[in-house]
Amino acid sequence: MLATMGALGLAPTAEAAQREQPFRAPQPGDFTLTGRGAAKVVVVGGGIAGLATAYELGKAGYDCTVLEARGRTGGRNFTVRGGDTTTDLHGNTQTARFSDGQYMNCGPARIPQWMVTLDYCRELGVPIEVFTNVNADAYLFNESTGMKKPVRYRTAKADVYGYVSELLAKATDKGALDKELTATDQEKLVEFLKDWGELGDKLTYEGGERRGYTTVPAAAGTSGVLLGDVPSASDVLASGVGRYFSFEFGFDQAMLMFQPVGGMDQIPRALTRAIGEHRIRTGAVVSKITDKGSGVSVTYAQGGRTKVIDADYCVGALPPNILARIPHNLGSGVQSALEAITPSSAAKIGLEYRSRWWELDHHIYGGITETDQDVTHIWHPSYGFHGARGVMIGYYNYGGDADSYAQLTPKEREKRAVAAGVKIYGEKYRTELASSFSHHWRQTPHLEAAWHNTPGGPDDIRYKPLNEPTGRVYFAGDWLSYTDAWQHGAFTSARKAVTALHARVLSA
Amino acid sequence: MLATMGALGLAPTAEAAQREQPFRAPQPGDFTLTGRGAAKVVVVGGGIAGLATAYELGKAGYDCTVLEARGRTGGRNFTVRGGDTTTDLHGNTQTARFSDGQYMNCGPARIPQWMVTLDYCRELGVPIEVFTNVNADAYLFNESTGMKKPVRYRTAKADVYGYVSELLAKATDKGALDKELTATDQEKLVEFLKDWGELGDKLTYEGGERRGYTTVPAAAGTSGVLLGDVPSASDVLASGVGRYFSFEFGFDQAMLMFQPVGGMDQIPRALTRAIGEHRIRTGAVVSKITDKGSGVSVTYAQGGRTKVIDADYCVGALPPNILARIPHNLGSGVQSALEAITPSSAAKIGLEYRSRWWELDHHIYGGITETDQDVTHIWHPSYGFHGARGVMIGYYNYGGDADSYAQLTPKEREKRAVAAGVKIYGEKYRTELASSFSHHWRQTPHLEAAWHNTPGGPDDIRYKPLNEPTGRVYFAGDWLSYTDAWQHGAFTSARKAVTALHARVLSA
Repeated sequence: MLATMGALGLAPTAEAAQREQPFRAPQPGDFTLTGRGAAKVVVVGGGIAGLATAYELGKAGYDCTVLEARGRTGGRNFTVRGGDTTTDLHGNTQTARFSDGQYMNCGPARIPQWMVTLDYCRELGVPIEVFTNVNADAYLFNESTGMKKPVRYRTAKADVYGYVSELLAKATDKGALDKELTATDQEKLVEFLKDWGELGDKLTYEGGERRGYTTVPAAAGTSGVLLGDVPSASDVLASGVGRYFSFEFGFDQAMLMFQPVGGMDQIPRALTRAIGEHRIRTGAVVSKITDKGSGVSVTYAQGGRTKVIDADYCVGALPPNILARIPHNLGSGVQSALEAITPSSAAKIGLEYRSRWWELDHHIYGGITETDQDVTHIWHPSYGFHGARGVMIGYYNYGGDADSYAQLTPKEREKRAVAAGVKIYGEKYRTELASSFSHHWRQTPHLEAAWHNTPGGPDDIRYKPLNEPTGRVYFAGDWLSYTDAWQHGAFTSARKAVTALHARVLSA
Repeated sequence: MLATMGALGLAPTAEAAQREQPFRAPQPGDFTLTGRGAAKVVVVGGGIAGLATAYELGKAGYDCTVLEARGRTGGRNFTVRGGDTTTDLHGNTQTARFSDGQYMNCGPARIPQWMVTLDYCRELGVPIEVFTNVNADAYLFNESTGMKKPVRYRTAKADVYGYVSELLAKATDKGALDKELTATDQEKLVEFLKDWGELGDKLTYEGGERRGYTTVPAAAGTSGVLLGDVPSASDVLASGVGRYFSFEFGFDQAMLMFQPVGGMDQIPRALTRAIGEHRIRTGAVVSKITDKGSGVSVTYAQGGRTKVIDADYCVGALPPNILARIPHNLGSGVQSALEAITPSSAAKIGLEYRSRWWELDHHIYGGITETDQDVTHIWHPSYGFHGARGVMIGYYNYGGDADSYAQLTPKEREKRAVAAGVKIYGEKYRTELASSFSHHWRQTPHLEAAWHNTPGGPDDIRYKPLNEPTGRVYFAGDWLSYTDAWQHGAFTSARKAVTALHARVLSA
């Protein structure tokens, strides 16, 4: 058994070494012995993939220019603060009225420990703090199963795990697992279940302190009053609260998760500074990409004028759904690959409150409340604890729910989101509201997608013209990765393009 | 069923109202109509209970004096930084050599969302941040069960929950739970288990992405390589990793947890400022407490001189094991109650490292590694992410393990703790070490306990002389609460004493 037990563990050093595809950033020294100069590169798209491309190539002295259609870099890494204005494709213009220090991350908001995004935070000096992805005191609410009130995560977990434990212990006791487990295994299993499910001596679940208290334990005289009646196994199963539990086991979602202090856009801001603002042209809408054999020519509009930039190479780091609409001479293979990838919807609304009533009244400091409402997820802020105000994410939803909210005016979205929240948190969800700001990616100019669906996966043969350079044009983006919708995908895709481009330049 | 489902949930408002025993702080206005003056109170002990007593009474203008035997306030709320010196009862003198910004909380280190400790942080303006009590990327290591290498929490959970799921689904399938569950319940249960345990179509557990990767998913071309072989159910049960899972369900330990920014002693520091330093005498060792009927006289030594302070009332807010050795005339009931309460051992060692190799090599940002070694718990720091250095807690252990380490010199403790850590983290646990500082509560002068065992619970009849005032002397401390070893217990016990004392003064 000892040999097999080894398989249980990780060799930390080996694991660390193999954690990611090896990446060696281009360096100034790479050119000193070859006599070659660093090439000129135009990067189309100033999101994370484009910025990472220019940043990494810049380390070796490449002459990079980034063309970004929006007024700021970052792409879907988009943090909204008071005073920020957007106009969506329906013509809704909103100006955020958040107070100083308050913000919402409209796009990526959380970073797992294993993603290279954290390495870039370290390298760029972007301070990080915990993103509160899971909280035992946040709520679960399934109105459709008959729940009249929300239940706290901790209570739901105690009940579900308690009954799972009891049922498995009983089945074991009945001999139902005699074929699957030895007597020793069964002993160990029941020992585990008693502790893990907080079972009583008779191997039954009868609730306990894990569910919570109505009066918490305190000084002598106050031993605490346990929370309500324990529902039956049947009621717990019918409530469907268990459907939310697996989220926190996900390789990309398990706590601990992190965020940059002060907003996710601290990352593109730092990248922009490192690249040099003079290399980045914002408000530059590309209208044509031409591979001329000896170089690439990119036509774009900026400030009402049409301009052309010539370079040795081009990296296309914009969303595939946008790129597919830009005239190019890169061939039908590129075009059909781009058109096979389809955009997805997602949206968030930020609700600024005049008080942090969720801390004061509910003792919830961060975390996510899960619902079967069309708001889907409600996020408590992971920053500003104990402050005067705070921004809740009133909905983070996808697909049809996001599209449905997108059809509404911003004020109507607020009203509908608040109505859902009131069911869970009570009237303060409405009465303490100061202002709101909603953002829908499918309706955002120059992006028109929260993320993308890539049928067959990024290595499907049809995407070969995107994964390999087409002439002098390379492609990069989270949509060309196995971590679609994550900055990690954009960073590693950019590294891949940079590595290939640099190898070509060095060997030319 | 709908009615029963209500029991699943909490009424947020009702819960908020009942969360704690009601407390109304004394106010200056309390005395304006009565014509009475605020009394003079001597508080023996400048830990959290004593400070909270003086702070709350001070709000109504009581003339409080706090006598604290140690050189600083806070009691067991004790944060060690570079330059701090301690001498234990064995005569070991240590001066911490931690670099600027590095610290270890020797005593309390974490605060759950429901405890009044957070309310004091808010009221006193002490900023808080997440304490990383649980981390999917931290390790579990049971050498005694044959594990050769540590396993990450996430991997262990995937395996244990996967097999629990599989076994329960199989038992259900066999009809083993037909008496316990209806057909509908069974359907819902299996639906839950498939998702929660990541079971395949045949309801078997075969591993998956939750376990982790050796090569993580990244750009196209790198779909990721799943971690190693999946151990058998028998091996997983034998490893005993599941014994650590219930920790995070505890009402007092479930994430999210919090800590003051910059060290737990920001709380006593803020209390000390609010009380007024002139009201606090440190290095004041009490040698006698005399209830004189019309007042209380407390004798103490300070700076080599014996002094006496007279007051209308006294609050004894020092550990029972220390108080039991101080001569008094409070009666045999008080004395036997104090002697019934026994002190417990606990210890920590802070290991400062020259690099944050756990972030760089292991991608562990905070959290606790659980072991069957005599170091018990190993804590990763919850602050200073991506910094140059960091302080790991190399052991947080109790009872015999703590006592055993206490017998060693500080250097020997370091050596032994590092040897245990090397088994889990590899050689950098030794080679990157810069310095260490160990703290053992049972061997700490004027405290001599990490916490206390109160047989029968704090409301046992034998403790009545402590829970009610004895003459003009009141008692307060976490040891007179249902949350022993937590600041919440000290705060709420102080509130109880303050409420009783103030009511008596107002009605006198």
